[in-house]
Amino acid sequence: MFVTVEGVEGAGKSTLLGLLAGEFERRALPFVRTREPGGCALGARIRPLLLDVSSRVDERAELFLFLADRAQHVAETIRPALQRGAWVLCDRYADSTIAYQGYGRGMDVETLQRLNDYATGGLWPDKTLLLDLPVETGLSRALARNGREGLTESEGRFEAEEQAFHQRIREGFLARAERWPERFCVLDARLSPEELLACALEALGLSRRA
Amino acid sequence: MFVTVEGVEGAGKSTLLGLLAGEFERRALPFVRTREPGGCALGARIRPLLLDVSSRVDERAELFLFLADRAQHVAETIRPALQRGAWVLCDRYADSTIAYQGYGRGMDVETLQRLNDYATGGLWPDKTLLLDLPVETGLSRALARNGREGLTESEGRFEAEEQAFHQRIREGFLARAERWPERFCVLDARLSPEELLACALEALGLSRRA
Repeated sequence: MFVTVEGVEGAGKSTLLGLLAGEFERRALPFVRTREPGGCALGARIRPLLLDVSSRVDERAELFLFLADRAQHVAETIRPALQRGAWVLCDRYADSTIAYQGYGRGMDVETLQRLNDYATGGLWPDKTLLLDLPVETGLSRALARNGREGLTESEGRFEAEEQAFHQRIREGFLARAERWPERFCVLDARLSPEELLACALEALGLSRRA
Repeated sequence: MFVTVEGVEGAGKSTLLGLLAGEFERRALPFVRTREPGGCALGARIRPLLLDVSSRVDERAELFLFLADRAQHVAETIRPALQRGAWVLCDRYADSTIAYQGYGRGMDVETLQRLNDYATGGLWPDKTLLLDLPVETGLSRALARNGREGLTESEGRFEAEEQAFHQRIREGFLARAERWPERFCVLDARLSPEELLACALEALGLSRRA
């Protein structure tokens, strides 16, 4: 089963993935925890290009870098894991590209959908856990994190952009959840990590006590 | 005027471009000489990923890397040069992607055409000089060069592939020249460099003696 965790910066994706991974380990379920961008060797070399705040990257060039990373990640990591029967737990995937580049930056959403179909060979997650959060809360969480630890690699670029941009992204994620209600499970990211874990396990058909 | 030079490995693209650049300098015509992949700062960081023979890159990931390079190159280098009235002389462009990935590797040619339209915002060259050469001649020239200078950066990956592959690429270039006869000028790459220069200048509307 291919599971993605999506949401704006500061929504708590890493925390939830960490708890899920712990639970999968405890239950001895085979799984691969991965992320985009940067979930494969090629992606690890692409990721710095994407996150380099100093360079002014053309929006289509940026999009193609994300798609290159995704195509390789699917071919090298995700499909082989699924084929050997492992779960794949992935931090961000195509929905992020469409929410950020499409709804956020105004690139054509249907074109992005087709390009992602092409990049992934039509592989979409079985289940997407969307951590939904009011934009102000997400941004202040992210800022608090920056204050505590300095600007980490994954921050900077996108977080430097304005609140209205993040509002469009949130609405983009929610629009996608509405379009594919079977695939998406929308979680209120203001719940405690333990509550979120319980909801996520239920959404994945894994009751809390197994 | 946007001019590209295309052809298989060993066809003499660099030699012709060098002579053309010299001629443009002599005539004090403003021009930019550039290349793909790697014609802009981002591209220079993408190029090693594309030419790394040791890594096994998924064909779609590779395609998207070429497109990322191209989108950035168009936005950062080619369009600004054309807008300020300079000639652009570019070593390889979208026709190479379609000849190599499409005709050579069997990816769908019409899809590649649309993706290149998208990456470039519809910017195609005003004139494409295609250096056409029998495959055996091109391969033996390339091998001779490798023997003389060792394996250079731009060689390795593609030249390691078989002759039939290069035959398909040659036919792909010629099919494109047939489809856009106004844009393409097919040159016999077995001519001397001086003869090729004369043909190229004529194709560009620049008589030899100006």
